[in-house]
Amino acid sequence: MKPGLYETLERIAATIEARKGTDSDTSYVAGLLGGADDGVLRKIGEEATETILAGKGGDRLHLVREIADLWFHCMILLARHGLGPGDVLAELRRREGIPGLDEKAARGRK
Amino acid sequence: MKPGLYETLERIAATIEARKGTDSDTSYVAGLLGGADDGVLRKIGEEATETILAGKGGDRLHLVREIADLWFHCMILLARHGLGPGDVLAELRRREGIPGLDEKAARGRK
Amino acid sequence: MKPGLYETLERIAATIEARKGTDSDTSYVAGLLGGADDGVLRKIGEEATETILAGKGGDRLHLVREIADLWFHCMILLARHGLGPGDVLAELRRREGIPGLDEKAARGRK
Amino acid sequence: MKPGLYETLERIAATIEARKGTDSDTSYVAGLLGGADDGVLRKIGEEATETILAGKGGDRLHLVREIADLWFHCMILLARHGLGPGDVLAELRRREGIPGLDEKAARGRK
Repeated sequence: MKPGLYETLERIAATIEARKGTDSDTSYVAGLLGGADDGVLRKIGEEATETILAGKGGDRLHLVREIADLWFHCMILLARHGLGPGDVLAELRRREGIPGLDEKAARGRK
Repeated sequence: MKPGLYETLERIAATIEARKGTDSDTSYVAGLLGGADDGVLRKIGEEATETILAGKGGDRLHLVREIADLWFHCMILLARHGLGPGDVLAELRRREGIPGLDEKAARGRK
Repeated sequence: MKPGLYETLERIAATIEARKGTDSDTSYVAGLLGGADDGVLRKIGEEATETILAGKGGDRLHLVREIADLWFHCMILLARHGLGPGDVLAELRRREGIPGLDEKAARGRK
Repeated sequence: MKPGLYETLERIAATIEARKGTDSDTSYVAGLLGGADDGVLRKIGEEATETILAGKGGDRLHLVREIADLWFHCMILLARHGLGPGDVLAELRRREGIPGLDEKAARGRK
């Protein structure tokens, strides 16, 4: 991965934080940070649907854009709960130890 | 963010790649990498629903785990299409330039 | 539509009602009627994803089955809230009056 | 259930059919009937998310409206594939015979 790419998540998280309390009329992010949880949850449902449709469609650029939309809205949801992408990465790293990446199967989930 | 945390995404992507072509009976990831696209897309739908329910529930640890599940399955989908988390980060970085993080609003989407 | 087909919804709703309070170990429906709301909501998310995948897939029998699954779980959710398919039909009929079926557009929603 | 309520589904299906080939600029339904499958599939994802959020919210009127939206868009999807609500009801009735309503559990699904 290109140097500096990782910092993108941290920079985006910082920018989302900076939007807290700003004018929701001029900022899309501020609008989703304020108000009820349902706004950003609705967007996560929409972007997950878009990701599924893009996955079926097979256009790689489209797929990357939809997953970027999905992750971005997850970061807004995290920020609403005082969390950030570092918490998600820490959870993913925690799982690495277990049986490789296949912890879920080992946990017998679904 | 703690040092080394960013590399988690790259390491997970590498482990997913290493599962390609291995036995899907013993590896959860290999099972989702092989066969039809629908398996991993179904999981993305499920994990998005779990994320929405966790967002309504308000348990922060639960929320982090569900988003980690969602991102992890997105990485499997990316791997199926010859892509990785670096492509998503590059797309997110590309958007940073535009009008801050609020590109979506600027694009007049939805 | 064949005679008697409409009564299916009413009969299913009655059977769901009859499952209330019965043993959730032996009845799938009783399991979703008891406990937390999340169980049936998770199923609605899953069946909606299956409907989307079936819609992309193009197999008509598969599509009908997934929509039947989705409507069935909606009826369980309705029963949990003291409602039934008649309430959904009444809402659909209420909308018929407005500008034909295109009320949604007229309401300027989304 | 009130007399005449069942015919609602059939009447709505007939109205959707009548929209086929009409001007998608003036009719919301015609817009979803024409063009790519993704439009109506996207709406089904959205309305399923709305149903989940309404289920968590607990407002019964809101819940009925969202399920009505979901079923209505399912009927548009059915119409796109030459199907109608009668096919869904026939599938639901077919299942009634098996072990009551609990066929799914009997089939060992999920």
